[in-house]
Amino acid sequence: MEDIKIIQVKQSVFQNNDEDANRLREALKKDKTFLLNLMSSPGSGKTSVLLAVAKELSGRLKMAVMEADIDSAVDTAAMLEAGVHSIQIHTGGMCHLDADMTRQGLKEVGYADYDLVVLENVGNLVCPAEFDTGAVKNMTILSVPEGHDKPLKYPLMYQTSHLLVINKTDVLPYFDFDTQKVEEYAKMRNPNIDILYVSAKTGEGIPALADWIYKNVQAWNN
Amino acid sequence: MEDIKIIQVKQSVFQNNDEDANRLREALKKDKTFLLNLMSSPGSGKTSVLLAVAKELSGRLKMAVMEADIDSAVDTAAMLEAGVHSIQIHTGGMCHLDADMTRQGLKEVGYADYDLVVLENVGNLVCPAEFDTGAVKNMTILSVPEGHDKPLKYPLMYQTSHLLVINKTDVLPYFDFDTQKVEEYAKMRNPNIDILYVSAKTGEGIPALADWIYKNVQAWNN
Repeated sequence: MEDIKIIQVKQSVFQNNDEDANRLREALKKDKTFLLNLMSSPGSGKTSVLLAVAKELSGRLKMAVMEADIDSAVDTAAMLEAGVHSIQIHTGGMCHLDADMTRQGLKEVGYADYDLVVLENVGNLVCPAEFDTGAVKNMTILSVPEGHDKPLKYPLMYQTSHLLVINKTDVLPYFDFDTQKVEEYAKMRNPNIDILYVSAKTGEGIPALADWIYKNVQAWNN
Repeated sequence: MEDIKIIQVKQSVFQNNDEDANRLREALKKDKTFLLNLMSSPGSGKTSVLLAVAKELSGRLKMAVMEADIDSAVDTAAMLEAGVHSIQIHTGGMCHLDADMTRQGLKEVGYADYDLVVLENVGNLVCPAEFDTGAVKNMTILSVPEGHDKPLKYPLMYQTSHLLVINKTDVLPYFDFDTQKVEEYAKMRNPNIDILYVSAKTGEGIPALADWIYKNVQAWNN
């Protein structure tokens, strides 16, 4: 198993993050690396979903993961244990990553050697949505226990996401979660958002999610 | 049922939020109003727990609620439907409330008429913990589906909270949630933190939580 590498990223020196994010995307395009920005509330299952997806994509794509947190390295430890190349990014108390902070992580992870790099953003539905990280696509996870009203309360997260993954479908019987309503609310924020249902625990829906990612990586490289 | 009142609070003009928060607490002390700041991830059950507590405290304390969100007024609607005096605070995209923003809400809610005002903060484990709202006590909810590792990842939330409420105990059988570990991690961040277990759905533990609040309100008024 690899050793855990923790890097402390510094806040951007660039005034215009949007321009910087575009520069980063151009560099990624040149090196044929697809960056996926993964966002959600704390505890929605970002790491569990990623572990299941990594297994599914193994042999089809070379994948690495950057774990961003305020503190701890528990998610990186889980990734490395599963044999997925991963580094831990500490944000110095900040609840988001901008493009330059993401670039610092990409450099450490050695991004050019990978087809797909996933940035597991800080668990938060507000700040991460406000900053373009330079990712090609944004994916957000909403877990069943959180309730179907989240797109009403956190508009920007759903406006800026290309894919909404509903996780923990295995516990649907135990919660009042209305799938029709969540789709209606999410599409109210973003009519073009894709929606997939998965359970990282049982594996339900993981192949379809892996296919969504695989197709987008292929499109980026062509 | 009361009409839904939505106020848009403005960012503070005070440079020193800590001093301003102390001024607000003095004003609350004078008017014998206890302000409880309630924080958690999105979907941990802040509103459901509050509704259950309000029922339990009915007749013992005069209680009002300020619901803070980026958008929507669904939580205020739920409070008003249950007969709890409540207003909706919109933060203009911000993921926290400072003392002056809280003061604007308290003025609208008519705080001096109430023994207990609860500020249901924006669903977020990062930013709300960084600002003293002027509350007498901070309470954070962690729900079972989020996992027991949250105190490792969000240190400040647990350092600044006086009470940790573990919610959704009814679904403990369906999740890998280690109560010993969560207590160990929370006390690592804050050795003095109180910990209570509840299920807003079944009502388990709600009387003990109501008693905790009641005792703290009594202590504040004496």
